[in-house]
Amino acid sequence: MSTTKTISRYPIPDVESLPLDLQSEIMEVQEKAGFIPNVFLALAHRPKELSAFLQYHVALMEGNSGLTPAEKEMIVVATSGINNCQYCVIAHGAILRIRSKNPLLSDQLAINFRKADISDKQMAMLEFAAKVCEKSSDISDQDLQQLRGHGFNDEEIWDIASIASFFALSNRMANFTGMRPNDDFYTMGRQIVTTQEMTKK
Amino acid sequence: MSTTKTISRYPIPDVESLPLDLQSEIMEVQEKAGFIPNVFLALAHRPKELSAFLQYHVALMEGNSGLTPAEKEMIVVATSGINNCQYCVIAHGAILRIRSKNPLLSDQLAINFRKADISDKQMAMLEFAAKVCEKSSDISDQDLQQLRGHGFNDEEIWDIASIASFFALSNRMANFTGMRPNDDFYTMGRQIVTTQEMTKK
Amino acid sequence: MSTTKTISRYPIPDVESLPLDLQSEIMEVQEKAGFIPNVFLALAHRPKELSAFLQYHVALMEGNSGLTPAEKEMIVVATSGINNCQYCVIAHGAILRIRSKNPLLSDQLAINFRKADISDKQMAMLEFAAKVCEKSSDISDQDLQQLRGHGFNDEEIWDIASIASFFALSNRMANFTGMRPNDDFYTMGRQIVTTQEMTKK
Amino acid sequence: MSTTKTISRYPIPDVESLPLDLQSEIMEVQEKAGFIPNVFLALAHRPKELSAFLQYHVALMEGNSGLTPAEKEMIVVATSGINNCQYCVIAHGAILRIRSKNPLLSDQLAINFRKADISDKQMAMLEFAAKVCEKSSDISDQDLQQLRGHGFNDEEIWDIASIASFFALSNRMANFTGMRPNDDFYTMGRQIVTTQEMTKK
Amino acid sequence: MSTTKTISRYPIPDVESLPLDLQSEIMEVQEKAGFIPNVFLALAHRPKELSAFLQYHVALMEGNSGLTPAEKEMIVVATSGINNCQYCVIAHGAILRIRSKNPLLSDQLAINFRKADISDKQMAMLEFAAKVCEKSSDISDQDLQQLRGHGFNDEEIWDIASIASFFALSNRMANFTGMRPNDDFYTMGRQIVTTQEMTKK
Amino acid sequence: MSTTKTISRYPIPDVESLPLDLQSEIMEVQEKAGFIPNVFLALAHRPKELSAFLQYHVALMEGNSGLTPAEKEMIVVATSGINNCQYCVIAHGAILRIRSKNPLLSDQLAINFRKADISDKQMAMLEFAAKVCEKSSDISDQDLQQLRGHGFNDEEIWDIASIASFFALSNRMANFTGMRPNDDFYTMGRQIVTTQEMTKK
Repeated sequence: MSTTKTISRYPIPDVESLPLDLQSEIMEVQEKAGFIPNVFLALAHRPKELSAFLQYHVALMEGNSGLTPAEKEMIVVATSGINNCQYCVIAHGAILRIRSKNPLLSDQLAINFRKADISDKQMAMLEFAAKVCEKSSDISDQDLQQLRGHGFNDEEIWDIASIASFFALSNRMANFTGMRPNDDFYTMGRQIVTTQEMTKK
Repeated sequence: MSTTKTISRYPIPDVESLPLDLQSEIMEVQEKAGFIPNVFLALAHRPKELSAFLQYHVALMEGNSGLTPAEKEMIVVATSGINNCQYCVIAHGAILRIRSKNPLLSDQLAINFRKADISDKQMAMLEFAAKVCEKSSDISDQDLQQLRGHGFNDEEIWDIASIASFFALSNRMANFTGMRPNDDFYTMGRQIVTTQEMTKK
Repeated sequence: MSTTKTISRYPIPDVESLPLDLQSEIMEVQEKAGFIPNVFLALAHRPKELSAFLQYHVALMEGNSGLTPAEKEMIVVATSGINNCQYCVIAHGAILRIRSKNPLLSDQLAINFRKADISDKQMAMLEFAAKVCEKSSDISDQDLQQLRGHGFNDEEIWDIASIASFFALSNRMANFTGMRPNDDFYTMGRQIVTTQEMTKK
Repeated sequence: MSTTKTISRYPIPDVESLPLDLQSEIMEVQEKAGFIPNVFLALAHRPKELSAFLQYHVALMEGNSGLTPAEKEMIVVATSGINNCQYCVIAHGAILRIRSKNPLLSDQLAINFRKADISDKQMAMLEFAAKVCEKSSDISDQDLQQLRGHGFNDEEIWDIASIASFFALSNRMANFTGMRPNDDFYTMGRQIVTTQEMTKK
Repeated sequence: MSTTKTISRYPIPDVESLPLDLQSEIMEVQEKAGFIPNVFLALAHRPKELSAFLQYHVALMEGNSGLTPAEKEMIVVATSGINNCQYCVIAHGAILRIRSKNPLLSDQLAINFRKADISDKQMAMLEFAAKVCEKSSDISDQDLQQLRGHGFNDEEIWDIASIASFFALSNRMANFTGMRPNDDFYTMGRQIVTTQEMTKK
Repeated sequence: MSTTKTISRYPIPDVESLPLDLQSEIMEVQEKAGFIPNVFLALAHRPKELSAFLQYHVALMEGNSGLTPAEKEMIVVATSGINNCQYCVIAHGAILRIRSKNPLLSDQLAINFRKADISDKQMAMLEFAAKVCEKSSDISDQDLQQLRGHGFNDEEIWDIASIASFFALSNRMANFTGMRPNDDFYTMGRQIVTTQEMTKK
């Protein structure tokens, strides 16, 4: 199916034509995932921008943080749902299912994070991420104070805001290019069998 | 997992305590689906309302129509996405995957129907359904004229409007009761293997 | 005036062509009101849908409830005002004037329920109805808790939500069909003389 | 009823304490209407502001214009409906019923002007008034061109914009002061008998 | 630059053709400012309306008040920013810089008053002005109570609401006429040197 | 004045403590501008993120493009105005004044780009940038087709979208950190004398 659908409104360069460091980053992710996520191919239309994009992404998503990797992805899925971004909801929804080992969470967050199976602290995290996403000009000291009241330290608060801000960029570029998620993402981590096993515990 | 989560803010009656016609409707769907969708249990708190709800649902979703059963479910999933209704997106998303034999369509429609893999005619159908959902007071003769221009007849236009209107009710009751979708819905119709076979054709 | 205006974008069936139970329901209301409210005629284009619609309406509006009949109509008028639904504001505005014996209340509620002559408890009821109407995805346990604090029990809270949800459907069908209120509704229950007598007390 | 309700959040001065020109203006309207509309009393808290308010009102509503007096009131009622202003909808609704000799029009316009019994030209007038009311920063030369296409000249276009702008002020002051419409306004011009006579013609 | 740009969509009358009292008001402001602000010329298309406009403006902006002249202009700049009104932000931004002797404040308020260098009391004043500007139908006794808690008396609260209401009119007329601010306003009161001197104190 | 105001909610690191490449980038801009723009200091709280941020900024704002440097800044100022971002409007407003040699343009764009002194082609550019900023999920092929109709090629369209997307991130980080613009930016490029000379030509 995806073989006949274009993955971007813009032409996709051959990976071999890209700068070597981008080539090796793409190889690496391909090896890990078994396929090249379309965001790499769509944004490779502008190698310098892709390079900065990936550097930013690594700094935010792979750096040390008080937030777990799953919590970071929760921010991505919830705010991308608010922005109606097909690519980011589908692709990061898959990653979140894997990182959280919870096959239900991504769909819940994408539809309405306020009804998702998460802790009160995580709900406060997503309420703030939603404010960064939708109405950052209203952010006040009180918002930070509230997050501290839920047990977040200031570095974790920066992480929440910074991830929500980065995906404000990412969602817009995906929506603009008409970026198409790889079919594989739709089913990754749904782990049907495992789910039933989990409920037995 | 779902075994420990409540499925409604209100108490769930024993099926045996319900009027006989409701009991048999519930048995029937249970036989077909293999489980009782939680909407039956949650709304059974008010048997008379459930009875009218189901009668309306049958009239709209199972009557003869120029719309295919899959197209009717597309309206449900797209407008329930706009209304951020967890239950209806997850449950009807499952039904749509089965009826459309397309494992990707429901997620696409729930996130942003304007980027989904559908025909121009179906897009016009969903644009109108979205207007019924969000701003019905602005509906004008021009809207109907536009749909006729896409090949819809007036009975089909009524179907679109009527389904979108009914789920305006349904989404609100699900959001109000905090209705929880059965876990089974998340994975139904994702047909992972079949998908890859389809892409080979 | 109304004799020259169509009452729906769709054709109106002869009452005699309708199923017998619908015919007798229509006769009954005609006898009571002195005329057939246009909603019966407009929705009779689809007898099965009308039948479910009326069954639902009866279950909600005529069942036993902690809410008074006037309070139920207040919910209808206030949320129909939010949805800019000409038919429901005019028709239910008339019913509310009669049920509340207050000739001013309907116009106040339709324009801005927050400025209407109602009790604090009724204001809380309408604030919640407005949330069901406009942003049901944000409903939380706190909303119910707040209503309990105003003295509503859980069955009354269901009534508020269920009526607001049903008229979410009803308003959309009226807006879609371009349903025209009978002229009679505009003046019913305005009881000009009585008003002045009341102010003397 | 109104005798027990305050008509403003602010104290109401004795008419005799007001400057003479305001006193005579108030006398004049009282003679014509049979009562003093509460807007005079509520805004008299600030005589200089009331004086400018009335001077502006006269310039707009009583000057020569290509718009009929009824059309001017249509602008007031429709935009006051958008602004949810109880006082202006009720009071100017009464005036409009009288000036248009149409007992239905005011309620229709207040609820949803797009469904009112008006001409296409009047609809264009109200669409523009609504834009002045809601999103004046988007007004462009095209808007004026469109109105000219409907047969409005530039002075009439100014009248539409100027009336909508003035009631942007008026609605806000009424909402701020909690201005209460006189009970009399609710029923003025409903002309129940006349209506039925009219429909016979 | 401004010499080639029209200052209104409507023709500008010769000042000499205007009623004498308007002429002298215009002369006076020209003498004080060194130029005629374009609002006088653009609105002079309708001398009676301009006359009422100026009378209202004087009553609000030059009357005695517990608000300082600078605070009044803060209300104008902040609400005109919300209404995206080029003329009022630029012209009153200049006046505010002069009255507040603060060259930074106007730009801050026009972009986002919530991030401006103002006191908590002034912030409460602007939050209320913004509510009058954007959602006056939601104003409640609580809003006034809150302002009293910040030390405003009821006359000052009226001033805030009344100024915000008047500029609701003013912004709409400026947006409608395409009113162009005089170039002079852009730089008035920026007092570059003085700023650096102030920071030394 | 700015000496007593904090420039971020987060601590500012010593420039000497930063990685060498960041130090030299900061030195370079300090030399050119005469001061260090606060964005460098505020974001330096996270050197890796700042590094990616600057790399992205250079790729977008300093690369070859069919858009002029002034047009790129126009996108920044207009979308930052929509996002109510004090830092970006003030700082990039200064840069735009310098690059466009037009002392009026920045204020116009920040308040309401639709009323600014720009060409029709530039207006189309900003309309699209505003859509990327506010509602990217609605972008369709038609939007790109429209821009091509105004003479933009596909690389220029990418530039518009990419700059608007990057400042979606930037505005959110500035709003989150409470980033304060340097006082210098307010007056840079206002070139009062030059303006009058320009109007003589």
